[in-house]
Amino acid sequence: MPHITLDSEEPGIRGLLGYRPETGRPLSELAEVLLRGPGTLARGERELIAAYVSSLNGCRYCSSSHGACAAAQLPGGMAVVEQVRADPGTAAVTAKLKALLAVAAAVQQGGLSVTAELAGTARTAGATDLEIHDTVLIAALFCMLNRYVDGLATVAPEDPAVYAAGAQRLISQGYLPPPAHAAQRD
Amino acid sequence: MPHITLDSEEPGIRGLLGYRPETGRPLSELAEVLLRGPGTLARGERELIAAYVSSLNGCRYCSSSHGACAAAQLPGGMAVVEQVRADPGTAAVTAKLKALLAVAAAVQQGGLSVTAELAGTARTAGATDLEIHDTVLIAALFCMLNRYVDGLATVAPEDPAVYAAGAQRLISQGYLPPPAHAAQRD
Repeated sequence: MPHITLDSEEPGIRGLLGYRPETGRPLSELAEVLLRGPGTLARGERELIAAYVSSLNGCRYCSSSHGACAAAQLPGGMAVVEQVRADPGTAAVTAKLKALLAVAAAVQQGGLSVTAELAGTARTAGATDLEIHDTVLIAALFCMLNRYVDGLATVAPEDPAVYAAGAQRLISQGYLPPPAHAAQRD
Repeated sequence: MPHITLDSEEPGIRGLLGYRPETGRPLSELAEVLLRGPGTLARGERELIAAYVSSLNGCRYCSSSHGACAAAQLPGGMAVVEQVRADPGTAAVTAKLKALLAVAAAVQQGGLSVTAELAGTARTAGATDLEIHDTVLIAALFCMLNRYVDGLATVAPEDPAVYAAGAQRLISQGYLPPPAHAAQRD
């Protein structure tokens, strides 16, 4: 049961975005830019970073939600997501993505854990400065969102089908609130 | 030395906000709403939560910056900031703020560390649902910002006078980019 009384039955972050639209709007914009905006990392790769960090933080809602988004947008599907959760070093992903996932894991531990060596390894594997920047910020974003979602004890459905359906909605509509909902909030 | 080449000599988060204005804008908006927007927690109290979490995360830039902002807006000044950094339980703050700082410390450990008991203690001490919500999100926000700032190894000045001057600017101008700068980014 959530620690505070929310206005809706929506699970995870969704109930929170509606509870406090003044913070919900910039949070949604940040997710939209980082996970779906123009960029050289594929959307599935960015979702994979989000799912991996959420898994390291033990956040079932975010890990399931973004794992489903990654699986639906990566050629390897859910098998690759599971491989990364188990060990990114042996997962069927590019050397560059492996190096970026190592950066993300360090961010999850703490900012000071991201060494020049980790950044250098990512660069040697072909990562640009912007890709390193975005990986650090995506990992940091989920260190915030995971704490927000679990720190208020929001509900996390158990049925994987719920997350698969949510992923299809996110992939087709994005993270910004739908226009009608947005107008209502303004 | 930062892990990536930034466009400016500005320290800490400031160089990052300018490097990637697409993410800088929602980050600034989130900080403005949570730390300075309408609310029943005093701005100095919110800055104190930010400084405390940043201190727990070992982020010198954010801890110094928001410690200076808290000190400038709290009746007890920097003495209270130092007391909270040492032990919120014995600091000269209200029982409600002590309880909210305990919630913030749990968020810093991880979302699942925030128990119903911690939330209940805050409520018994007079905290509203919105105050508990905002405390969790401020603490989570700084778990992101601290990781962003240190994960990219940005520069943190050592001179306290730099942070005191920055605090005066933030208190008078807020967290949103100045209009000229904003226009340039659009």
